[in-house]
Parts: sequence; structure tokens; C-alpha cells
Amino acid sequence: MDLAQRLLNGDRRAAARLITLIENDADGVELELRHIHPHTGRAHIVGVTGPPGSGKSTLVKELARAFRACGATVGIIAVDPTSPFTGGAILGDRVRMQDIGSDPGVFIRSMASRGKLGGLARATGDAVKVLDAFGCQVILVETVGAGQGEVNIARSAHTTVVVEVPGMGDEIQMIKAGILEIADVFVVNKADRSGVDRVVVELEAMLAMNGQPRAWVPPVLKTVATSGQGIPELTDALSRHLEHLQGSGELARRLEDNTLRELLEVAREEFVAELWRQLGAAEIANVTRAILDRRIDPRTAAKQLVKRFRGS
Amino acid sequence: MDLAQRLLNGDRRAAARLITLIENDADGVELELRHIHPHTGRAHIVGVTGPPGSGKSTLVKELARAFRACGATVGIIAVDPTSPFTGGAILGDRVRMQDIGSDPGVFIRSMASRGKLGGLARATGDAVKVLDAFGCQVILVETVGAGQGEVNIARSAHTTVVVEVPGMGDEIQMIKAGILEIADVFVVNKADRSGVDRVVVELEAMLAMNGQPRAWVPPVLKTVATSGQGIPELTDALSRHLEHLQGSGELARRLEDNTLRELLEVAREEFVAELWRQLGAAEIANVTRAILDRRIDPRTAAKQLVKRFRGS
Repeated sequence: MDLAQRLLNGDRRAAARLITLIENDADGVELELRHIHPHTGRAHIVGVTGPPGSGKSTLVKELARAFRACGATVGIIAVDPTSPFTGGAILGDRVRMQDIGSDPGVFIRSMASRGKLGGLARATGDAVKVLDAFGCQVILVETVGAGQGEVNIARSAHTTVVVEVPGMGDEIQMIKAGILEIADVFVVNKADRSGVDRVVVELEAMLAMNGQPRAWVPPVLKTVATSGQGIPELTDALSRHLEHLQGSGELARRLEDNTLRELLEVAREEFVAELWRQLGAAEIANVTRAILDRRIDPRTAAKQLVKRFRGS
Repeated sequence: MDLAQRLLNGDRRAAARLITLIENDADGVELELRHIHPHTGRAHIVGVTGPPGSGKSTLVKELARAFRACGATVGIIAVDPTSPFTGGAILGDRVRMQDIGSDPGVFIRSMASRGKLGGLARATGDAVKVLDAFGCQVILVETVGAGQGEVNIARSAHTTVVVEVPGMGDEIQMIKAGILEIADVFVVNKADRSGVDRVVVELEAMLAMNGQPRAWVPPVLKTVATSGQGIPELTDALSRHLEHLQGSGELARRLEDNTLRELLEVAREEFVAELWRQLGAAEIANVTRAILDRRIDPRTAAKQLVKRFRGS
């Protein structure tokens, strides 16, 4: 609980260290997270997702700058492997990041995939909690919105910004991956390019087609992140969305959904760890062997494991 | 077990119908899958993964054609939301697909994400089993290799082909997403473009840097899928990789890993379903509420759930 206590006291390095431990799934993390849990739930968590090359990182940087100008402290978590924040950028990008990186009111952190099943989404969720407890008032989580894992990361945000750009192909790529449902705000970035209005019209048409009337209709905004154009409108939309969430009861519903999902996920992991302890590796290997030999199918075998776990 | 029996008898529509039921997570699927399980494990499962626009679908089509020319029956499962196989293509693409689509020795199927946590990877794995039991000798699974979910899909293949193209940006995007570890064969497609040799050199340099000597060094091949160039070398590499897997004992290891992963995944689901049945929605909502009120943290709550499930 040492790191937790120190970060609650404002120790920036303790926060960074705890996130590293989370990434490595190190011993003791559980206790630290337990200690910070009562101090979470204060930040406005904003997911920013979009395809590689859509300028998400620059947008996130400009958002951070705008929130700083209003006096808010900002956390940035970059999960996108193509993001300059994650160190995958050419030198110029990193230099451009430094101006906000040296601001003590901004905490920047990248998360690397360790290749574990769902591990990155969990680690990112825990890193968000660390920054929340550390006192970041707005937390921007940048992901490349292509896969299921990223959709899950986005889903745990309060507000999800989906970034599109003109000229990425004949169709709006993200929509097909089920992103439409999770978008609270659409941003068409690089709006100084040709084709921007077509993308806006397509997005608005899709939103209009989307059946039943919604209490919140996702606005479609145009930005040029590199010049800061459209950023005030975007921060305004984010604030309005948060107000909508709070006023409509939707925030409570989302928090409940997210908490339930997290609870079940952790319970699932705990179950497997306990199952392993109870049966032992050799016995689990026996069951695996029986499936491979086609003596039993995976579902029947899994049901039997759960029954044995219960001792019934 | 009706559909299972029919598809085992060679009824193509029964196979298609069962995959639809799998996608919809319909009742009765479990029984059908149990019935086909003894008839699986025969196909060579090849994952083909790469970024949108890398020409994966054309590559998959040409691979299918090449395998057909050798007399093998082929299954194609497209999980990539940008793939022409999945219906997301412009008309021209679909027309181009029809020549293999009308071949009775080719079974083409797209899988749509239903937005469920990990649901797509599971459904895809089950669809592969259906095609395996149906008698497809080679099964090509096309995914966009960006997210964790896709990595998991690729992981259950025997042989994973990672497709790159020249000119997709300053760096090789896929590598950062942990794809390097799962690639058995690299393909640089659109090799008639400039910059192809640079991509090949970069890939080979990364492979050389990759530490310990490996029994199988992933070859880096150049293809122009639209003209069929490089396809014979690719099918040859796939065959050699399968021989390597069989000869080295690596196939047995991979099958064990995959089977264990599937067993635990199904057991986890079964656990949650049983937990829900045992405690009831109201009680689980109570626990969620306690976490939201910061009376307990998610990990401690999850541990308690697992203990209660066991009745200890």
C-alpha cells in the first residue's frame, strides 16, 4: 500500500511506478488498487478512438492543452500502438509532445500490450483508476479503434470520441466495427482536406438512420488538430455530454454496467486461478488431452470442471 | 444434432445454417458442436492477418484458387470488417470474388461481430470447427490484425500469415501490436509498389534481432495478389510450415495450448452463467452497488463471489 499512499499524497513517480507494476501484473498490485479504490470515481474519462493516421494523438494533445487552460489537471493514457505517446513515433512527433509533457498538471502514460487475453483492457482500466486517484480531473484514453479489445477499452469511458478523417477509403471504416454504437461525439479531423463534408454528411446520415430517437444525438464536429481549429467546440461538446450523462441518469447506468462487467471479469480470472490451484496442472492437462483425443468435447469438459470446482 | 448430422453427410446448407446459429449464440448450438467434435482436427488452419488495404482478401482468394488446383477443398472465413468477403466491399470486389464463390469445393463465410466480449473470437473458432468437420482440408481465416481479439483469432490457427504492404507509413505497423511473435510467414503484398524491398529488409532485420535461434524462421515473401505473382511460393511456404509443425512436435504443443485456452474460456463462461443462476441478478446488483459506493473494491468482491460459489 506504500505506492498507493504516496500517490494519494501527490507523488507522481509513485503513480508511474504503480502503472508499471499493473502492466507487468506484478505481485502486490491488488493491495495497492484496493487502497486507491475509495479515491476513484471523480475524473471525467474520455476515450478517443480512431484509425491509425487519423491524428488522434495531436487531437488528444490539443484537448489536454484546452483543459489545462481551464485549470483542470489532465491524464493521458495512450493504448494506440501507433501513437506518438507510446514511443512509436518519429522524432518530430515526440518533440511536439514535450510541451505538454513538461506541464506538472499533465500526466502522460503509454500502455503496452503484453499479449495476454484481454490483459491490456484490464491494465488500461486499472491505470485509469491510478490517474483518477492521483487527482487527474480529465483522463483521455487514446486507442486505435479497430479491434474488440479497443472497443472494450472505449466502453469503460464516460464519453467516447470517434475520430474519422477524409480520404481513408471509400467508406467509413470504423462504423463497420460496431463503433457507431459507442460514439458519443464524432470528430472529422484533418478538416482542411478535401472530402471533409462528405464524411460529415455520411456520419450524420448514419446517425439519422439509427432508428429510435435518442436523448443524446452524437454531434459531428470538424477539427484541424494541428492548428487547434475546432478544439473549443470539442471541449464544449465533451462538457455538454458529461452534463447530459449526469442529468439524465445515464451516467449511473453506465457506471453500473462498467462495474458489473469489471466484477465479472475479475471473478472469472479468480475462478480460473482457484480452479488451477484445486485441480493442479496435471489434472487440467489430462482434461485437455481427453479433448484432443476427441474423447470429450470442450463444452462438456468445461461443464464438468465447473461442477468439480463446486464440489457437486 | 440434426444440422451436425446433415453437414457431416455433406449438406452445405446445414453447415451454413449452423454457423449462423453460432453467430447468434442460439440454443442448441452446444449439442450440434458436441456432435461434430469427433470429426474435427483434420484441416490445416491458416490465419491471414494484416491492416486494412493490404490486399488480404485478394491474397486469400488466390490462395484458395491455388489449393483448389491441387485438389484440396477450401474454407474461407472472413472476420475482417473491411474484407470484400464480408460484404463491405464495393461492387467490383464482390464480382471478382464470385469465380471462387461458385466453386463447390470452396466454402466462403463471413463472421460479423455481435459486440460481445470475446464473442467473435469464440464464434470464429466454432465456425472453423464446422468447416473442418464439413471436410474442408484447408481453412483460411482472414482477420484485420489490429486488435487483441484478432490476435487471439490468429493464435488458434496452425499457420499465421502476416501481410504487410509498402507505403503504409513510416514504420511497419503490425509489429508493434505483438504480431511479430505470432507470424509464421510474412507476406509483403503489392510488391509491384515502390518501397517493397525496404519493408522486406526491415522485417528480416526484426526477425534477426529477435533473440534466440528458432527452429522455424518465418520467411518473408513478396506477392502481387492481383496478378497471382508469388502465390506458388506462398502455398509452398504454408506446406513447409505444416511439415515443420508436424515433424518438430510443435503442432502437438500448439494444439495443446489452443485446446487448454478454449477449455478455460468455456469454463469461465460456464462459471459466470452458473454464478448468475446461483446468486440471482438482484444479489449481483447488490455487490455491484457496494463497489460503486466504494464500500468494497472489485477484486475483493470478486474473490468473495468465487468463495460463495464454492459454498465455502
